[in-house]
Amino acid sequence: MPRYKLLITYDGTAYQGWQKQPEGKSIQGTLENTVFHLFGKRAEVVGSGRTDAGVHALGQVAHVDISLSLQPNDLRAALNGRLPGDIRVREVEIVSDTFHARYSAVKRAYAYLIRHGVDPSPFFRNAAHQISRPLDLERMNQAAATLVGKHDFSAFRATGGGHTLPVRRVFTSEILPLSNHFLCYLVIADAFLRKMVRGIVGTLLEIGMGKSKPSLMTRLLAEKDRSLMGTLAPPQGLYLAAVFYPEPRDGAD
Amino acid sequence: MPRYKLLITYDGTAYQGWQKQPEGKSIQGTLENTVFHLFGKRAEVVGSGRTDAGVHALGQVAHVDISLSLQPNDLRAALNGRLPGDIRVREVEIVSDTFHARYSAVKRAYAYLIRHGVDPSPFFRNAAHQISRPLDLERMNQAAATLVGKHDFSAFRATGGGHTLPVRRVFTSEILPLSNHFLCYLVIADAFLRKMVRGIVGTLLEIGMGKSKPSLMTRLLAEKDRSLMGTLAPPQGLYLAAVFYPEPRDGAD
Repeated sequence: MPRYKLLITYDGTAYQGWQKQPEGKSIQGTLENTVFHLFGKRAEVVGSGRTDAGVHALGQVAHVDISLSLQPNDLRAALNGRLPGDIRVREVEIVSDTFHARYSAVKRAYAYLIRHGVDPSPFFRNAAHQISRPLDLERMNQAAATLVGKHDFSAFRATGGGHTLPVRRVFTSEILPLSNHFLCYLVIADAFLRKMVRGIVGTLLEIGMGKSKPSLMTRLLAEKDRSLMGTLAPPQGLYLAAVFYPEPRDGAD
Repeated sequence: MPRYKLLITYDGTAYQGWQKQPEGKSIQGTLENTVFHLFGKRAEVVGSGRTDAGVHALGQVAHVDISLSLQPNDLRAALNGRLPGDIRVREVEIVSDTFHARYSAVKRAYAYLIRHGVDPSPFFRNAAHQISRPLDLERMNQAAATLVGKHDFSAFRATGGGHTLPVRRVFTSEILPLSNHFLCYLVIADAFLRKMVRGIVGTLLEIGMGKSKPSLMTRLLAEKDRSLMGTLAPPQGLYLAAVFYPEPRDGAD
């Protein structure tokens, strides 16, 4: 049975998040229902990880095993023909059954989009976090840079976040000025704790607005005290930008 | 009783259009209900013109008479505090009661946003018309330019479009390349017939895709035959960009 790897983009505004839920629409559930309606088969679509309600993806990766003799591009066309417009399959490829969207992933990149220093616009309300006051990008970048390396991120762990180890390795953590009123916080790590990025961004915002010092970030890592963290930034600014896998070894695919 | 002039931005996706309807949400109705909930007064919010269902505005203008002793900025803050996030009041000013949002307007500017030559993205599905195939901007611009001047636009008049005279004066009609995959059609005229811009854009698209010659536009103006027109372009790409009024004479304000 072929294993298909899917590269997926979605606008998460209308969804309860990636993960299937007993009630409410999810991205995963919508994909699985689409597979069922097209091919009459119930198959699990396994994602690289969850995204929360209202969070978007530019490059979520998933795999699904379906006994079809479909070429990747035909599966892509069939899925896109039936999926709602807020979910698009960008690429499909056939992969070895040793590939696992979640367990094979070695890095994830998240982008958090902020529109600042200007009145909120109706056109960005679901696509960015809008803050009327201006932000000090220099201070934010100084704090962001301290996250690079291997750290215990317990201070940013969501309550009820499970028993996973809180140590993560961060490869990139920086503020990118996109234009006059837009900035993007880009963070790449081996993996993330639940709501970790939104906690980091909430803290960066307090620093950028002058409510806290850049050194707060170092203190959070050292003291592991969630009560010091800034307010969780809202979901609509967050995008799962990319998931990285090792290059397949010769002959493994 | 003071007359307030409002400059309004809205994402029209969730609305039946500007105009109050017996059923369904409208921009005008939402504004009037907001005024009522805030001040307990029923007042008509008079717009510069209608926009259709799903059409957006960057700079719609309206006026409303309310017996309040509120400063313009306080009225703006009160309205924005209560309006849904897809409608924002950008500016409020007190104007003379000779000002009328519709009858005083001398020009209107519409922008139509097209994303082309790339697969559709979930993030632009309500904000632009997305066309996978590439467009020939040179051909489109050639056709667009022929609309400048005073013409009979009967060919672009919506059925049931009323008894208004079909002659309009177009000041600007051009294709602006915004980036690799985005273009904007900008058209400024004294006034527009219903669905005129979407008819023009539909025709420009046929020309841009090579299905029709640029000279089709001249033929449409000359023959006034709606059956020659391209398919009406969908509403989500259309923005009422600005409404222009004469400079107030000295002492008139």
